[in-house]
Amino acid sequence: MGTYDVWAPKASSVRLSLDGEVHPMTADDGGWFRAPSGLDEGAGHRYGFLLDDAEQPLPDPRSRRQPDGVHGLSETVDLDAFAWTDRDWTGRQLAGSVVYELHLGTFTPEGTLDSAIERLPHLVDLGVDLVELLPVNAVNGRWNWGYDGVDWYAVSEAYGGPEAYQRFVDACHAAGLGVVQDVVYNHLGPSGNYLPSFGPYLSSKHANTWGDNVNLDDDGAHEVREFILRNALMWLDAFHVDALRLDAVHALKDDSEVHLLEEMATRVQALSAHLRRPLTLIAESDMNDPRVVTPRDGGGYGPDHRRGYGIDAQWSDDFHHAVHVALTGETTGWYEDFASLDSLAKVLTKGFFHDGTWSSFREKDHGHPVDTDRTPAWRLVVANQNHDQIGNRAVGDRLAGSLDDGQLVIAAALTLTSPFTPMLFMGEEWAASTPWQFFTSHPEPDLGEATAKGRIEEFAKLGWDESTVPDPQDPQTFERSKLDWSELEGGRHAVVLDAYRRLAALRRAEPDLTDPRLDRTSVEHDADARWLVLTRGELRVAVNFAEQPVTLDVAADEVLFASDVSVTAGGTLILPAHSVAVVR
Amino acid sequence: MGTYDVWAPKASSVRLSLDGEVHPMTADDGGWFRAPSGLDEGAGHRYGFLLDDAEQPLPDPRSRRQPDGVHGLSETVDLDAFAWTDRDWTGRQLAGSVVYELHLGTFTPEGTLDSAIERLPHLVDLGVDLVELLPVNAVNGRWNWGYDGVDWYAVSEAYGGPEAYQRFVDACHAAGLGVVQDVVYNHLGPSGNYLPSFGPYLSSKHANTWGDNVNLDDDGAHEVREFILRNALMWLDAFHVDALRLDAVHALKDDSEVHLLEEMATRVQALSAHLRRPLTLIAESDMNDPRVVTPRDGGGYGPDHRRGYGIDAQWSDDFHHAVHVALTGETTGWYEDFASLDSLAKVLTKGFFHDGTWSSFREKDHGHPVDTDRTPAWRLVVANQNHDQIGNRAVGDRLAGSLDDGQLVIAAALTLTSPFTPMLFMGEEWAASTPWQFFTSHPEPDLGEATAKGRIEEFAKLGWDESTVPDPQDPQTFERSKLDWSELEGGRHAVVLDAYRRLAALRRAEPDLTDPRLDRTSVEHDADARWLVLTRGELRVAVNFAEQPVTLDVAADEVLFASDVSVTAGGTLILPAHSVAVVR
Repeated sequence: MGTYDVWAPKASSVRLSLDGEVHPMTADDGGWFRAPSGLDEGAGHRYGFLLDDAEQPLPDPRSRRQPDGVHGLSETVDLDAFAWTDRDWTGRQLAGSVVYELHLGTFTPEGTLDSAIERLPHLVDLGVDLVELLPVNAVNGRWNWGYDGVDWYAVSEAYGGPEAYQRFVDACHAAGLGVVQDVVYNHLGPSGNYLPSFGPYLSSKHANTWGDNVNLDDDGAHEVREFILRNALMWLDAFHVDALRLDAVHALKDDSEVHLLEEMATRVQALSAHLRRPLTLIAESDMNDPRVVTPRDGGGYGPDHRRGYGIDAQWSDDFHHAVHVALTGETTGWYEDFASLDSLAKVLTKGFFHDGTWSSFREKDHGHPVDTDRTPAWRLVVANQNHDQIGNRAVGDRLAGSLDDGQLVIAAALTLTSPFTPMLFMGEEWAASTPWQFFTSHPEPDLGEATAKGRIEEFAKLGWDESTVPDPQDPQTFERSKLDWSELEGGRHAVVLDAYRRLAALRRAEPDLTDPRLDRTSVEHDADARWLVLTRGELRVAVNFAEQPVTLDVAADEVLFASDVSVTAGGTLILPAHSVAVVR
Repeated sequence: MGTYDVWAPKASSVRLSLDGEVHPMTADDGGWFRAPSGLDEGAGHRYGFLLDDAEQPLPDPRSRRQPDGVHGLSETVDLDAFAWTDRDWTGRQLAGSVVYELHLGTFTPEGTLDSAIERLPHLVDLGVDLVELLPVNAVNGRWNWGYDGVDWYAVSEAYGGPEAYQRFVDACHAAGLGVVQDVVYNHLGPSGNYLPSFGPYLSSKHANTWGDNVNLDDDGAHEVREFILRNALMWLDAFHVDALRLDAVHALKDDSEVHLLEEMATRVQALSAHLRRPLTLIAESDMNDPRVVTPRDGGGYGPDHRRGYGIDAQWSDDFHHAVHVALTGETTGWYEDFASLDSLAKVLTKGFFHDGTWSSFREKDHGHPVDTDRTPAWRLVVANQNHDQIGNRAVGDRLAGSLDDGQLVIAAALTLTSPFTPMLFMGEEWAASTPWQFFTSHPEPDLGEATAKGRIEEFAKLGWDESTVPDPQDPQTFERSKLDWSELEGGRHAVVLDAYRRLAALRRAEPDLTDPRLDRTSVEHDADARWLVLTRGELRVAVNFAEQPVTLDVAADEVLFASDVSVTAGGTLILPAHSVAVVR
């Protein structure tokens, strides 16, 4: 496929506008249009496509860069030009790894990939193995969480564009860090989405109140699927990325015989063999369905023998909800089902809380049980905070905004001693005092206003004063969401950071903590007295959520980590309010 | 568990003989005996155990080194003392890799681990990813294939002992090569096996005409299983090995609820998470049973939903047999079923030839089919020659002894363009003219004589003149099996080596060649005219086994590799006798 070829079955004719000159294109099979041969396909050419008798060229659906924004011309990039230094990199597997989720725009004051490189030593010191980037696709406006992307093949110019992205991945590998890229295939942003002009990228087949879905199984779906699959492979191959985080896979509606996820898993496994390094797919899924992460080979899953999709891992929000409620006492919305400490006990031993149980929020039974005898627990990625769980709160407040140090260390300890794959959200490790709020920068006044209005109304319904909810379009909302690295030096920040570092180091040192066998994990707890003891092999993690001290008869030979805990001569633990200890 | 502790349930009392002094030991639960505290556990101490009233100490079942041979005292080793330089090594996965099998004693003139290090650049140039070592355990005598091992925790002194082993693995990792260790858990060598004096390591439960089996499911099996499992983990952890090749798993008779193989897979996966690098288990199995390599999670395999064991890969000898017969025309013994080129066509597309079909050699139906839609083909490890297929021939002759260069290149091309994991046997890559014969060096005259007699009689039955079959005990049999690196420079050796290098490079360069999807692999062939065309994605591998040229209407746009093949202007291939081409 040539650089300037384009799939545009909705058009009768297509012309290429390249560096100001218009070239006729030739219709080919299946809705493809081919550019004339002999055109320079090197870097730096501005181009777009004139569909039918249009006078305004549209950007390339496969654009690698949009120097003038999502409405402007595309620019050619030579992805092979970069001088990679990671020849010896043989990959970073997810099993046993700690993931660190970050948003490039707010991770550093400069908000770029190059400035993020300068902070990699902090992540290495912290004990991180994989850096996960929120989506980097080109979006309209100057900043955005990233989920409004419309040019799935492009890296946002605000972050430095594709070359900066390659520098970042190369620097991560040099530091021993793998890279996870968050990619969105379930929807397109509200501004700059020209795909529907080219072809049936969207379909009403599974349409719901939010509109059409990405077309995975309707007429023309084959090319749309290829568009997505080739994009996934691009990150892993041309950008040397180690893993993809697939946004909201429950919204990938697909009744095809082979689900897009299974096809992606198969293609990625083939690429992994070619590159001779592990490539990992991580799904964000609200389905609580182990089928997503069940290997493809080896028969179906569960009593009805449903085929596995072969995705490597999936996010499990139940862990977050159980920890959040146990620490904050919040029980609104979907937190209601997690009111008792029983839910945390179940999550720690069974993976999902909702595994066929009643969800009061959904008003139906929800989820399927994990096969705890045979599913390695690292297939579930858990966090006590993440971009959604913080940013989708009215004021984007972190746990650090309402919890004391002892409680924050409990959250850290539960995450980093759990049998699951721990994920941290940037700044969590030092109890960052900066919020992480919902911010947009839609240049279209109508869109900006609608976004802000929708956001404020949503929280008004929940009883929030309109003046309290930050305006997503206000530049200050973005600015105040930036991490303040200067606060890392002292006070509670240094205390919490020290705890995170010691816990991450403990996880690396103690095989019991990365042991993925759920049948070797057990919990004792008292939901009324609000304490819990998690057993991981020979180690125990004793947690006191209560306001009162508790004495636990945990025969502790050795204290591996403790926040303010004392041990009697007989090995009995005395846990003050809001404290945690990891003992052998 | 202390260094000097020992499991000896068959003894009523045990004393430790350490550096010439005798120390009483204390009986503990479950047949364990504990040494007194305060003894120096550092390196360099000679020790053994006096069972009951014995006067002669026996070596430690867990001995790390036997400086005076398998009958002598054990010596302590500090496995943590080595200064590893592979801190940045994040593993080498099997998928996509090329394996190189070698026997340390005959790989170099010196026959040591340190001399093997000097040949690693040759393997890197060749395009190898993983180096597989025949068993390195301590055996009686000066040389041996390695399958007579009795001290499963020790590295043979002849190869340099455990420190040299660590140097070798470290050097491999520095060169970008992973290490596969061949380990034998299904039997013990005939000399120096003191395990039965300590405990029920063997059991008659599954005894056959060759004697007792290793006890995996009879009384006392728990400790025997732990002995094996900890040994497997030792190679991966203390020696930084990347993969284990498990000898003859069909001989691991185990009726336990969880088969030893499944338990090993689970434990190794837990260690992999701790070490944060891929660890691979490869089974040698003559069962042709996909269950061995079916993932543990995700329900049972096949119509009766048998649980998978979760081993990563297994050897598939059917590939060897089909290639061997197609090239040599030999059809004796089990080769009979592979007489037609149909067998090679089936192997290349289905994985196993015997997948429930009649085995005339076994006189029964044999094997189960591979799920070709969903099993990645790299789970089958294939070779056109290996230590067994060469060494177990009467005179240990390689394919190079009977085939012309064109035929050798066909063997190389089929192996390196197959969908499976290719494995080469040392010297194959340059058509080594040295044989690789069956050699032993049993110091016990009776054992030596019995071994030689048995060997010669076995082949006499097949019609071989007794004087032709080499005496395994003759030192010259070992000497003549050593590779002659001087021949690598010119003649047919250089021609064949060049072909191997180009084919291995092509395998790395072309994603289609490592694509593990068997449903994208197909074969066209003519069993009478003796040609075959293997399709791998967009590539085709055209082979002419016949003595006559053949013209094949394979529209070839580009010739990627060819031995003496011409292409007409129209893309038709003209293949002379014994030739192969890889085309796009």
